Amino acid sequence: SKSKGQRVPPPVVHYHLNNLTTSVNPVENRETVLILSPLARFYPGYWENLLKLSYPHDLISLGFIIPKTREGNAATSALQAAVAKTQSGPESKRFASVTIIRQDFEPPISSQNEAERHKLENQKDRRAAMARARNSLLFTTLGPTTAWVLWLDADIIETPPTLLQDLASHDKPIIVPNCYQRYINLDTKKADIRPYDYNSWQDSAIAQQLGQKMGNDEILVEGYADIATYRTLMAHIADGSAGRDQAMVIPLDGVGGTALLVKAEVHRDGAMFPPFPFYHLIETEGFAKMAKRLGWSAWGLPNYFVYHYNE
Amino acid sequence: SKSKGQRVPPPVVHYHLNNLTTSVNPVENRETVLILSPLARFYPGYWENLLKLSYPHDLISLGFIIPKTREGNAATSALQAAVAKTQSGPESKRFASVTIIRQDFEPPISSQNEAERHKLENQKDRRAAMARARNSLLFTTLGPTTAWVLWLDADIIETPPTLLQDLASHDKPIIVPNCYQRYINLDTKKADIRPYDYNSWQDSAIAQQLGQKMGNDEILVEGYADIATYRTLMAHIADGSAGRDQAMVIPLDGVGGTALLVKAEVHRDGAMFPPFPFYHLIETEGFAKMAKRLGWSAWGLPNYFVYHYNE
Ligand SMILES: Nc1nc2c(ncn2[C@@H]2O[C@H](COP(=O)(O)OP(=O)(O)O)[C@@H](O)[C@H]2O)c(=O)[nH]1
Ligand SMILES: Nc1nc2c(ncn2[C@@H]2O[C@H](COP(=O)(O)OP(=O)(O)O)[C@@H](O)[C@H]2O)c(=O)[nH]1
Ligand SMILES: [Mn+2]
Ligand SMILES: [Mn+2]
Repeated sequence: SKSKGQRVPPPVVHYHLNNLTTSVNPVENRETVLILSPLARFYPGYWENLLKLSYPHDLISLGFIIPKTREGNAATSALQAAVAKTQSGPESKRFASVTIIRQDFEPPISSQNEAERHKLENQKDRRAAMARARNSLLFTTLGPTTAWVLWLDADIIETPPTLLQDLASHDKPIIVPNCYQRYINLDTKKADIRPYDYNSWQDSAIAQQLGQKMGNDEILVEGYADIATYRTLMAHIADGSAGRDQAMVIPLDGVGGTALLVKAEVHRDGAMFPPFPFYHLIETEGFAKMAKRLGWSAWGLPNYFVYHYNE
Repeated sequence: SKSKGQRVPPPVVHYHLNNLTTSVNPVENRETVLILSPLARFYPGYWENLLKLSYPHDLISLGFIIPKTREGNAATSALQAAVAKTQSGPESKRFASVTIIRQDFEPPISSQNEAERHKLENQKDRRAAMARARNSLLFTTLGPTTAWVLWLDADIIETPPTLLQDLASHDKPIIVPNCYQRYINLDTKKADIRPYDYNSWQDSAIAQQLGQKMGNDEILVEGYADIATYRTLMAHIADGSAGRDQAMVIPLDGVGGTALLVKAEVHRDGAMFPPFPFYHLIETEGFAKMAKRLGWSAWGLPNYFVYHYNE
């Protein structure tokens, strides 16, 4: 019976949020990390990269949210197979826990090819749906012992193995690396890199003025030539040279979510991903703005790269 | 060793949010409820009332956030003693789990007497701090299996034992009873009741116009004679007669948080308690507005009473 000690979870758990540190030495201080990935497709490269992270895996919990679609079912099976293999393999590679959430609403666009996804008119609905997915995942998995949250899209297939330590070492509430993509340059016929994510930027007076003229429900999306915002895009100020300063850090007003490290207390304070226009911003860009309203700051590493899958 | 099956929690936990129901028959459907209480003082009447709730206790988890102050330490000890007694008492009274979170920031006003708390100039800071406390509690305790969240202030000392079933039976995303207070009427020298919480209201054209004229960072607080909003306050439209229709339900634009039932999916979607002015609203009133921006609606039960402690 329950009174014979089989009742789970324990009757009282007492947590001191003020004893939770988020420091420049997270490994030494045994700080727990929650890696959250919205996932529509499973890329083996994503999982292999995750396994290579040198942050102690027993301090890492994983959370996924996967749409309730046929493609989502396939992704779930593939993810579960990968999880099962890892969690029964060498102990040092196993993660502390893995939570898979199936989404309870329909994604607004069924086609998932890159061109269709990026059409301007599709952006608002698509990003609102992504924001809701991120919120569901966040509200459901963040626990009292989580110190850091790493948002990592499921199509980020290459990061430095020291990603977590490197990002944490800057001791910022919110910090984002530069998300690039490998490709074959048709001019040089050589392997090259190009910017992928345009959501990390510094605001401009022009964008602010555009915002003031817009209706309350309109959004200002970055990365479309037909709306010149003159924001400073982190994607464009990267130094690609071998000797570049990877630790160079700049303040940001908008952030992308392909890879994004957030101190858990920023989220606990209430910072989420607005699915509605918030100061004309939505999803991860709106998140940065909301965090600012809560008194936190966002930062970027223009010369520190992570790589997005190339379809 | 860990490989001998002692690793907790389990390697993969898979949740289907779409299988989580929030229905008019929550008991029958075994729907789990998370009762969340920000708590600065421990009132025995609050705990006794909680124990009387007829909703199956094994479906109820409790979460508390308590400030890191001397008064908070005393409240924590008193709460822990009450929890220990209940969780080792009759099984039918025990709750599924209890989580106590200690707040990691300072409350802005140390004095907690009612007059001081309610001074208009103190309201913005105080309610911003309350909003942050509610968010910390919510983000930290909401789990993948939570169907409903009941916000219940720690000084609500009397509710019908069927509170959860009654509120859920209306099948609304957000629903709030009328928060009153018992007192001795000095005119009649008899026990009487009077309104306590003025945060549940229907908007007015005048309040909307006031909002439009205000600066972005100003808030419009309810319940102060010097700002006439002409909102319809639920506190004032109650029928106190014995034969009243307790099931009468009205749409609301702002809600109070002394007792407040929310479908967990509303929170998961991103609805939190804005500590910053959101459409000139803050905390629970801002929450109702944010939920609306997310497509949900808020409702009130003018003739269904819960009672606030009288200092
Ligand atoms: N849960 C969920 N994840 C999605 C959905 N659509 C895309 N994703 C995932 O969310 C992340 C970002 O989406 P993606 O389409 O790659 O965005 P883009 O690279 O910015 O065009 C990726 O990890 C996708 O696998 C969705 O509807 N639901
Ligand atoms: N965690 C936390 N709870 C608080 C704080 N201040 C008040 N509370 C609790 O939050 C609830 C609402 O606060 P209260 O002062 O009663 O508000 P009022 O009745 O609207 O004036 C009550 O349960 C309080 O015990 C605080 O600074 N931190
Ligand atoms: Mn992508
Ligand atoms: Mn109170």
